[in-house]
Amino acid sequence: MREWTSTVGAGQLARLLGPQGGAAAGRRGPAYRALADGIRTLVLEGRLPVAARLPAERELAAALAVSRTTVATAFESLRADGFLRSRRGSGSWTAVPAGRALPARGLEPLPPEAGGTTIDLGCAQLAAPEPWLTRAFQAALVALPQAARTHGDFPAGLPALRAALADRYTERGVPTMPEQIMITTGAMGAVGAICRMFVPGGERVAVEQPSYANVLQLFREAGARLVPVPMGEGLSGWDLSAWRHVLGEASPRLAYVIADFHNPTGALADDERRRGMVAAARASGTVLIADETMTDLALDAAPGGRPRPVAAFDHGGSTVITVGSASKSFWAGLRIGWVRAAPEVIRRLVAARAYADLGSPVMEQLAVAWLLTEGGWSAALEERRAELRGHRADVVAALRERLPEWEFAVPSGGMTLWVRTGGLSGSRVAEVGERLGVRVASGPRFGVEGAFEGYVRVPFIVGGPVAEEAAARLAAAAGLVAGGAVGAGLATPAGYIS
Amino acid sequence: MREWTSTVGAGQLARLLGPQGGAAAGRRGPAYRALADGIRTLVLEGRLPVAARLPAERELAAALAVSRTTVATAFESLRADGFLRSRRGSGSWTAVPAGRALPARGLEPLPPEAGGTTIDLGCAQLAAPEPWLTRAFQAALVALPQAARTHGDFPAGLPALRAALADRYTERGVPTMPEQIMITTGAMGAVGAICRMFVPGGERVAVEQPSYANVLQLFREAGARLVPVPMGEGLSGWDLSAWRHVLGEASPRLAYVIADFHNPTGALADDERRRGMVAAARASGTVLIADETMTDLALDAAPGGRPRPVAAFDHGGSTVITVGSASKSFWAGLRIGWVRAAPEVIRRLVAARAYADLGSPVMEQLAVAWLLTEGGWSAALEERRAELRGHRADVVAALRERLPEWEFAVPSGGMTLWVRTGGLSGSRVAEVGERLGVRVASGPRFGVEGAFEGYVRVPFIVGGPVAEEAAARLAAAAGLVAGGAVGAGLATPAGYIS
Repeated sequence: MREWTSTVGAGQLARLLGPQGGAAAGRRGPAYRALADGIRTLVLEGRLPVAARLPAERELAAALAVSRTTVATAFESLRADGFLRSRRGSGSWTAVPAGRALPARGLEPLPPEAGGTTIDLGCAQLAAPEPWLTRAFQAALVALPQAARTHGDFPAGLPALRAALADRYTERGVPTMPEQIMITTGAMGAVGAICRMFVPGGERVAVEQPSYANVLQLFREAGARLVPVPMGEGLSGWDLSAWRHVLGEASPRLAYVIADFHNPTGALADDERRRGMVAAARASGTVLIADETMTDLALDAAPGGRPRPVAAFDHGGSTVITVGSASKSFWAGLRIGWVRAAPEVIRRLVAARAYADLGSPVMEQLAVAWLLTEGGWSAALEERRAELRGHRADVVAALRERLPEWEFAVPSGGMTLWVRTGGLSGSRVAEVGERLGVRVASGPRFGVEGAFEGYVRVPFIVGGPVAEEAAARLAAAAGLVAGGAVGAGLATPAGYIS
Repeated sequence: MREWTSTVGAGQLARLLGPQGGAAAGRRGPAYRALADGIRTLVLEGRLPVAARLPAERELAAALAVSRTTVATAFESLRADGFLRSRRGSGSWTAVPAGRALPARGLEPLPPEAGGTTIDLGCAQLAAPEPWLTRAFQAALVALPQAARTHGDFPAGLPALRAALADRYTERGVPTMPEQIMITTGAMGAVGAICRMFVPGGERVAVEQPSYANVLQLFREAGARLVPVPMGEGLSGWDLSAWRHVLGEASPRLAYVIADFHNPTGALADDERRRGMVAAARASGTVLIADETMTDLALDAAPGGRPRPVAAFDHGGSTVITVGSASKSFWAGLRIGWVRAAPEVIRRLVAARAYADLGSPVMEQLAVAWLLTEGGWSAALEERRAELRGHRADVVAALRERLPEWEFAVPSGGMTLWVRTGGLSGSRVAEVGERLGVRVASGPRFGVEGAFEGYVRVPFIVGGPVAEEAAARLAAAAGLVAGGAVGAGLATPAGYIS
């Protein structure tokens, strides 16, 4: 079996390396080292996937206007460091050194009661929007007696909620019948059910690089072979030619895409990219999971209007499966998510549910149905968005003040900043931050095979003095990591207060 | 690799075949045929597992006091029918013919709204116990505002519910700390989480034969290799020597046992068997899952007192993992279950949850915590048990009147009758019953590899005229199946009323 899963052309690599062929501005030293460093950085930041075959030395030398010796020496240096592997006749492909920290696990939420004085930015979650949560359950209590007369098992979900969600999709321009909706245990339950159905044994799954950590881990646990497609720098997002290339070459069974305020980068795909990705998926026989968990969290006015839902570009109706959730739009404590798909896919998912979680809680479904049909959802969202705008401004200002060397783009929606930690290891920053009373998720959790060591994800879910304190603690962690003074001497600050 | 997974001794097989060596009472015909029929019946009813190596012909002849030719001819006949496979040097082992209906899928609950006039005995579920459900959610609403101020992600469960459940185990004689409890999405979510942790790739799992259909299917989907351990006839239940034998020989990673009002048979394991199964599991390094879903449903007074929880016999604390649920005790619409295990097992299960369902709904947990601590659980259970006693009497009487040739034992608790359909195919009865407006689960769903074709499961969840009507429809289905008059001529009775 070949050991590379995608290829990168000479022109494409030259563009990725930038005008200086990978050399940082003002950098001095031999040309081969600049090139080797540039390629290594692209791999570690996930912009060049792991197991991507590089162009031949001669081709790359021509594209970069350097000597072939420079390229050969750079490749040799990358091989020695474990960032490149080669085999006669197969060429050379990117790799990650064996000892390098891999993105081991998903994000394990810190239980609120264990929080103490820790500022928990590990999860991108907010408190519930009141009084809407209470009102929703008051209304659900009124509807409960009727549901209580049934045995309570609704494997596809309560009819009222399925209908309310179908109407919402129809309003958003994607005509939908209730038979196209299944209620799940959050978006994770939805992705899990789709994964069990389409990835029974080691199939390929294309994912954005970076992508949502817990879903990456869910796919890994299911035995999927992840094929990363690099996201562009900052908020530039999806590279259509890379998606066409990877889908065409790897023909993955599934592709998982967060086109609306991508987690962690915050990028938003425009209509053209949505259309292009759906077309590429259709052409390669790939089922495209569109995770719309963040879709309600548009924080800035969009001059040209919001892009259409990914499913709107799926004219046959059999390429896109949409996943939604109340967790980010409303509250994670509800655990209500859903799938929108073709009726026959829903039927299969519902049948398979008998030996998974059987169904979703009735009371929660009544509450969400009320929110959707009686206006509570929109009203709560208005407040939520205003809250997030404030938090975003506060977190951005605090980070810029305390950590001016950290770089990030400010997204127009969602809940997260994807932050370059100025050359520091994001894993070490997260590790030390945990001990200093601030929890953030390190970059590698969002990457495939060790990428993004130089990143952390910072959700803007706190504001005011808490945002300032979080940035101060992160700055303290960064200082310790930069100084290398981290080790046995640092006590775990169980009762840390600052 | 060897093709048999357990062995049966000559004496054990002779006992299973009974005094007449397998011949039905009053049966005439050659001795070899009686023996072949006896073995076939044992396989189809699951009392002899599939892939069990039979004793050598000479040994079995001696134990049955028949000629070796009789045994050889019986084996030859079983081989011809596909119920036995042999290989020189490996002996002969039981099998199921290829064309035989296998227990394909789990029990897919019929959504209540689709019920129409169908009497749904497919799921062993009851309507919610009111006013307790409403009261529990009223109380939960009072507690909600405090929880609403958190982000709502409690991967291990709400502290109040973990503590209430720990106290309950302690009261039942199994001292338990809250750190030993994780809240899950029903008992299925609990078994699924345990399965993902202990059966990552094709490990063996010992199961009762028969066992709960949906859990069998969950294990199959996870790639487990099921090793069935036959239950005794009627309510006689667990054969300790068979358990010791199978666990000792197959050393399965997990064993799954429903010791309290077993689903589907209704059997109840006594203390001696519980102690013996735990000891056997410890000896073979097997983790024993004790599913206590039915434990609250003791309907008859136990003269010698109730057996102790299975976990009470696990002195090291690392052999037994207990699974519980509100689904049968209270209402399936809640979707709250739990795991009780050693703290380190709980920690691992909680960490893994980040890439499964993340957590359980807060409101449901508040409701169950109130029920457990404020007496609602016990009060509702009293009513539930009284209701089930009445239903049990009605269903038993109706079946005996309408289907006197169907045989079953009346269990002292739980919700189900395990019914021998008088020589008819349980799958056909279920199929025709569905069209006649009564849904029951066929026997093979509860078995491994095609066993229990001659059974259906009938939950006693209806009473009075509904129970009578259900029995009448089942009798009509049985009549059609017996007459062989089932086929294209029978219209699907969409609006069937009788």
